[in-house]
Amino acid sequence: MPEFSSLEYARMQDAGDELASFRERFLIAEPDLVYVDGNSLGRLPKAALELSRELVEQQWGSRLIRGWNEGWLDLSTRIGGKIARLIGAGTDEVLLADSTSVNLFKLSVAAMRARPGRSRIVTDALNFPSDLYVLRAAADLCGGELCVVPSEDGITVPLQALRFVMGDDVALVSLSHTTYKSAFVHDMRAVTAAAHAAGALMLWDLSHSVGSVPVDLERAGADLAVGCAYKYLNGGPGAPAFLYVRRSLQEALQNPISGWLGRDDPFSFSPDYEAASGLRRFISGTPPVLSLAMIEPGVDLVLEAGLDRIRAKSIQQTEYLISRWEQELRPLGYTLASPRDSAQRGSHVALAHAEGQRLNDALIERWNVIPDFRPPNVIRVGVSPLYTTYTELHGAVQALKSLASGLG
Amino acid sequence: MPEFSSLEYARMQDAGDELASFRERFLIAEPDLVYVDGNSLGRLPKAALELSRELVEQQWGSRLIRGWNEGWLDLSTRIGGKIARLIGAGTDEVLLADSTSVNLFKLSVAAMRARPGRSRIVTDALNFPSDLYVLRAAADLCGGELCVVPSEDGITVPLQALRFVMGDDVALVSLSHTTYKSAFVHDMRAVTAAAHAAGALMLWDLSHSVGSVPVDLERAGADLAVGCAYKYLNGGPGAPAFLYVRRSLQEALQNPISGWLGRDDPFSFSPDYEAASGLRRFISGTPPVLSLAMIEPGVDLVLEAGLDRIRAKSIQQTEYLISRWEQELRPLGYTLASPRDSAQRGSHVALAHAEGQRLNDALIERWNVIPDFRPPNVIRVGVSPLYTTYTELHGAVQALKSLASGLG
Repeated sequence: MPEFSSLEYARMQDAGDELASFRERFLIAEPDLVYVDGNSLGRLPKAALELSRELVEQQWGSRLIRGWNEGWLDLSTRIGGKIARLIGAGTDEVLLADSTSVNLFKLSVAAMRARPGRSRIVTDALNFPSDLYVLRAAADLCGGELCVVPSEDGITVPLQALRFVMGDDVALVSLSHTTYKSAFVHDMRAVTAAAHAAGALMLWDLSHSVGSVPVDLERAGADLAVGCAYKYLNGGPGAPAFLYVRRSLQEALQNPISGWLGRDDPFSFSPDYEAASGLRRFISGTPPVLSLAMIEPGVDLVLEAGLDRIRAKSIQQTEYLISRWEQELRPLGYTLASPRDSAQRGSHVALAHAEGQRLNDALIERWNVIPDFRPPNVIRVGVSPLYTTYTELHGAVQALKSLASGLG
Repeated sequence: MPEFSSLEYARMQDAGDELASFRERFLIAEPDLVYVDGNSLGRLPKAALELSRELVEQQWGSRLIRGWNEGWLDLSTRIGGKIARLIGAGTDEVLLADSTSVNLFKLSVAAMRARPGRSRIVTDALNFPSDLYVLRAAADLCGGELCVVPSEDGITVPLQALRFVMGDDVALVSLSHTTYKSAFVHDMRAVTAAAHAAGALMLWDLSHSVGSVPVDLERAGADLAVGCAYKYLNGGPGAPAFLYVRRSLQEALQNPISGWLGRDDPFSFSPDYEAASGLRRFISGTPPVLSLAMIEPGVDLVLEAGLDRIRAKSIQQTEYLISRWEQELRPLGYTLASPRDSAQRGSHVALAHAEGQRLNDALIERWNVIPDFRPPNVIRVGVSPLYTTYTELHGAVQALKSLASGLG
């Protein structure tokens, strides 16, 4: 048995990995590159490369305007229906549209207006900054305010801290399910129940969960959700985002950006807006077809591999990283900025270091290792189980080690 | 000299067309297809087909997250700067983001909030329905209301009808410069002056003008504009839209959807939003890179051909259509639903017919002619001078004629 910290050990793990063949389904242009940033931008599925040719030359180039009736109009709900299976939602509860920020705006304004007399939105300091900005703007536009629960350790926010501010003035609680920096995972069911007990609606941002951490919106009783398709779903740079509205809530909420494709029968070109029944009302303008269609191959790969297997490998790989951190990196000044308990951790490991920014830059420039950096001092090492190898993670650890030793 | 209504005449016109070579720069997959719907979805530039390969395989596939620093982050303002040259704006006054509807929402809410104490938005009944829906929603969200000036003839709205409702309670006047159904073109300078005289801001939707009708926002003193990139700019299905904010107004307006990419230094990941200086504050979330980048080849073709030549050919071709309508189609029950004066007309010709819907369907199914239909009875014949031939227009007229004769 090779030593745990050896390259041989990593290779042995790769050889025994039942998801190993999925790596071949992605373009690996630089075999020596250690890409541990799939949590920021996922790799290109080979099927997406094929699709892009068909999409541009055949669909746009040859079919022209006919493309709308030959599939484009349904892309948003059809691919949304596939994503639904990854987050415990019905196929009529998820669609793709706009960006995560715009979707968050639409749903949070809709939620505020559905709870007149309640003026607050509750979130926490671990939420992605864009969510904080948009929630504050939505609250402001509706004459309310945003309440941001701090994180004492910078890594987690316990349920009781959230519950403490959930009074009867709260219209909406909105959190990232897996937080972007520490990868802390909220207890979706417990937090949702607390929000409901306070009479508030619950909105989850699933950007750092979808495709890597199992989510069951229905079982949790969640009302609303948004999320991003370019991380673990491998949907392409800036891929349109998804949104979820619980079925029983769909008719009660109004999209504040009431564009034509959210109208009942948009091709009536009627001067008055009548919201489409069901979820379609949350579409606004015409979607960017090329970017939208390109999401499907990545989602298909996640469905094919199965979230249980993905999650199992993700836990194994983040545990591997953390074990190596304990033995080799902690003595060099790295601290773990992610939860130690895998049940509370998503699919990346955050390592803080006083020289974090310099180390991150050197990883990229001198070691061909790509993680990413989040201020003030966190290096995120992302695991995307469909293509991340133990050999890569070994390479990342070796580089982190060598660089920090060199600092001394 | 061949007869005006003959195929030979059309071919002779094509032979003498100085823009003829531009047609070869587009993919023409079906040479026999008469495509007169470039005003709805423009054709695929061959350069875009090349770009799509580079973009997907090289940029996303190989460069991965590095793509953001190698060009993606600047796409929005860089291509926006090119579009600026087509609409009389500065390169720092135009950017690409979101859809036309979402941009209209952002700018109209920003305008309403910049004019406190004024509660009305003025538009007209010829505006695109999505604009009416979004303007009404924006007014509503800000506690105001939308005033829609009717069109008496269904084709035009005179300045004095607009001026009549421009009281001191008007915060914003928002119109389509070229209207989607009749192709009527407002006098941008005169309407803008009237809005300003009333103390209102002026917002133009340039979707049916950009790339076909010269626009000079600066000369007109316009405050705000939005527009679409998938019509005469040939930017691809659902291509992201552009927005314009007059330089001197940029610091005074706030984007209501304050997403992270509109923040000053978004990569600070700071919990508080501080709007970027200048126009970038009107970006919200992460843009769909593939759809966004694909806009550039079409814009380049328009710049290369030059708007003066494009407009000259557009007028010649719409005049050709109208002359043939007068002689051959009017007797068959078609009425002209576009302005007769080319100075007031954009780049399509609207023909109304009691059997409009049936005729439109038959054109597509039996004649391989693709125009489009707008309720209740209008067939739009679009001229996109970079690739529309007289031979195609001849084919469209022949089909319109044969079909309507057959109805008799």
